[in-house]
Amino acid sequence: MIQVDKALSIIADNSIKMPVRKIKVCKSLGYILAETVYAPIAMPPFRQSAMDGYAFTRSENKQYDVVGISQAGDNDKYKIKANQAIRIFTGAFVPDSVNTVVMQEHVTVNGDSIMIDKMPEPNANVRAKGEQVNEGDIMLEKNTLLTPAGIGFLACLGITEVSVYSKPKAAILVTGNELVQPGKKLKLGKIFESNSIMLQAALETAGIKKVKVFRVKDNLKATKKVLKKLLSKYDMILVSGGISVGDYDFVKEALLKKGVEELFYKINQKPGKPLFFGNKEEKLIFALPGNPASSLTSFYVYVLPALKKMMGFEEIHLKRIVRKLSTAVINTTGKTLFLKALYDETHVSVLDSQSSAMLNTFATANSLLFVPYDSTEIKKGEDVTLLPLD
Amino acid sequence: MIQVDKALSIIADNSIKMPVRKIKVCKSLGYILAETVYAPIAMPPFRQSAMDGYAFTRSENKQYDVVGISQAGDNDKYKIKANQAIRIFTGAFVPDSVNTVVMQEHVTVNGDSIMIDKMPEPNANVRAKGEQVNEGDIMLEKNTLLTPAGIGFLACLGITEVSVYSKPKAAILVTGNELVQPGKKLKLGKIFESNSIMLQAALETAGIKKVKVFRVKDNLKATKKVLKKLLSKYDMILVSGGISVGDYDFVKEALLKKGVEELFYKINQKPGKPLFFGNKEEKLIFALPGNPASSLTSFYVYVLPALKKMMGFEEIHLKRIVRKLSTAVINTTGKTLFLKALYDETHVSVLDSQSSAMLNTFATANSLLFVPYDSTEIKKGEDVTLLPLD
Repeated sequence: MIQVDKALSIIADNSIKMPVRKIKVCKSLGYILAETVYAPIAMPPFRQSAMDGYAFTRSENKQYDVVGISQAGDNDKYKIKANQAIRIFTGAFVPDSVNTVVMQEHVTVNGDSIMIDKMPEPNANVRAKGEQVNEGDIMLEKNTLLTPAGIGFLACLGITEVSVYSKPKAAILVTGNELVQPGKKLKLGKIFESNSIMLQAALETAGIKKVKVFRVKDNLKATKKVLKKLLSKYDMILVSGGISVGDYDFVKEALLKKGVEELFYKINQKPGKPLFFGNKEEKLIFALPGNPASSLTSFYVYVLPALKKMMGFEEIHLKRIVRKLSTAVINTTGKTLFLKALYDETHVSVLDSQSSAMLNTFATANSLLFVPYDSTEIKKGEDVTLLPLD
Repeated sequence: MIQVDKALSIIADNSIKMPVRKIKVCKSLGYILAETVYAPIAMPPFRQSAMDGYAFTRSENKQYDVVGISQAGDNDKYKIKANQAIRIFTGAFVPDSVNTVVMQEHVTVNGDSIMIDKMPEPNANVRAKGEQVNEGDIMLEKNTLLTPAGIGFLACLGITEVSVYSKPKAAILVTGNELVQPGKKLKLGKIFESNSIMLQAALETAGIKKVKVFRVKDNLKATKKVLKKLLSKYDMILVSGGISVGDYDFVKEALLKKGVEELFYKINQKPGKPLFFGNKEEKLIFALPGNPASSLTSFYVYVLPALKKMMGFEEIHLKRIVRKLSTAVINTTGKTLFLKALYDETHVSVLDSQSSAMLNTFATANSLLFVPYDSTEIKKGEDVTLLPLD
């Protein structure tokens, strides 16, 4: 049995970034850039008006004949004389023969000519080519998470494909003779199986979509058979249940028989003590406890960092923040506790029911309060560490 | 022109919750419950062992014959006599004829009988039927956001369908003669169109997926025609560009001609002053400025709350949190500023480039610093309000 922080460092050390691949920018939301992106063009790509107004060559002259127009998207290379101007709009091309734009609020229009009431400085309201970005400038650093802003930025540079770290292909394997699918009739002794749908949703929030679920009875032979198949096809396997020490918990034995190396088994924590983590080459296998709340706690604290490392994130662990505790916490277990909690800007309060079998508290929690194994009592008002889930 | 807070309250007042519909629990991630969910079954649904051990009827006797087994999922109604016990596992059915489970660590096994070394209290390690939930108890309140925990919780109660607020069908309409699709050749005077892909990604992070994009030239007739179609088919329309006061900005005129009621136009802010918000019956229309950073700021501050209200969220506006300012901010504009910023647990710093035309700063920001229009100077170290985007 190991401590929580040791388990987290074993996960960080053994989770390997996925292979790099090219994807379309329009599909890249949530991926991590595997290359630094340089500007393929200057921005703006041409001399551009910053205002709606009139473009002319700055002089002492206040009156100009309006001889043309440059609307956004136009590219007419007008040869403008000293006493001439063109109507121009924000974002429009500024011909080489002029150097200044006067905003429309500062002119008086008389038919086809204008009188400038407030003369701008030379070169005013003209954005130089490359004013914001020169061709070849670094645009986005390697290892940047692609957000809506990042995606828009790539698109405005005309970039349509980027190199990113692939996302792992994940599978869920559910074990347990007592499990019945929701929607079916619940016979005596049986319970509804909810971990697969819960883990699918948790994986989806982490950006891993459409994860397949496999099911197996509590039986060594069947468990080995399905694991063989999953180990050949998936980068990450989450096994649900069958990992305690009961006589019918075959998962660990089956994993070891199929060549999975044990990296740790059992953490000094509550909930989620019987957690198994192993690998086979670069594939990762977590066997999670069957109790729903234990399973989900294990997912957030341990599986998510492994997934994030594989996906190329630099910060992989749940953020830890500090708040003041609203009511005292006693810990007589000698184990690290992860308690379902609600935090706000200043305080955190532990929710009433902490059963590892029930998810109702989890459904209203926004964080896990972290109580170290060697912390026997935390008083009301003390600073505590918590892991936000929102 | 109105102030920011007035615009936010107009949006909250005019965004209407979408119709309620039934969906499968496995598809319900990110939806808001439109009904209170009551427990259809008790949890646990039967008397259940909380431990791996032996079930027996508590007495002075310390030795028991093991006459059977109850594994998770079994339902054998053993008639156990006073001197008998059965092997039992965590989660397994506890027959009516026994009342107590002793954990396996507290017995010595001798062939087919056990000696109890540490006698548990009567009824120990037996979870009563309904100990956690009684049939008919409130499980999840109306207006709860469905998270992985909530979804798992519904499934463990055997629930397969829930009533939720529908998500709005959204469309994006891009205007601008200067725009070229990324991947095409960029002719002089043109720029790459990036707002549609950016807004699609922003909508996707808000849970609105596969949003269609429509394009139209700067032309009143064409704009009216496409708007007519979109107003008949979509719950929310985001128009990009064409909303300034240039002679070729036809969007507002086209919207009004097509029966859209103006709820506000122009906000005393930077970036994003020329923002239009209107409705037609319960459909909402935002016309966003064409500059990418202005567009995305407007999305986060104004469009997202409208979407969240439609989706049934109670808290719709971006969270506002307080941090200490790392470097002074001067505001001589008389406008409310939304500055791209980076915050941590204690401080916030404004990023260097704040151009509304460029997204590079946005791609690395994690928040928008909120500088009120009547705040001309904020000194280093003062408390400031910011809107987290992460």
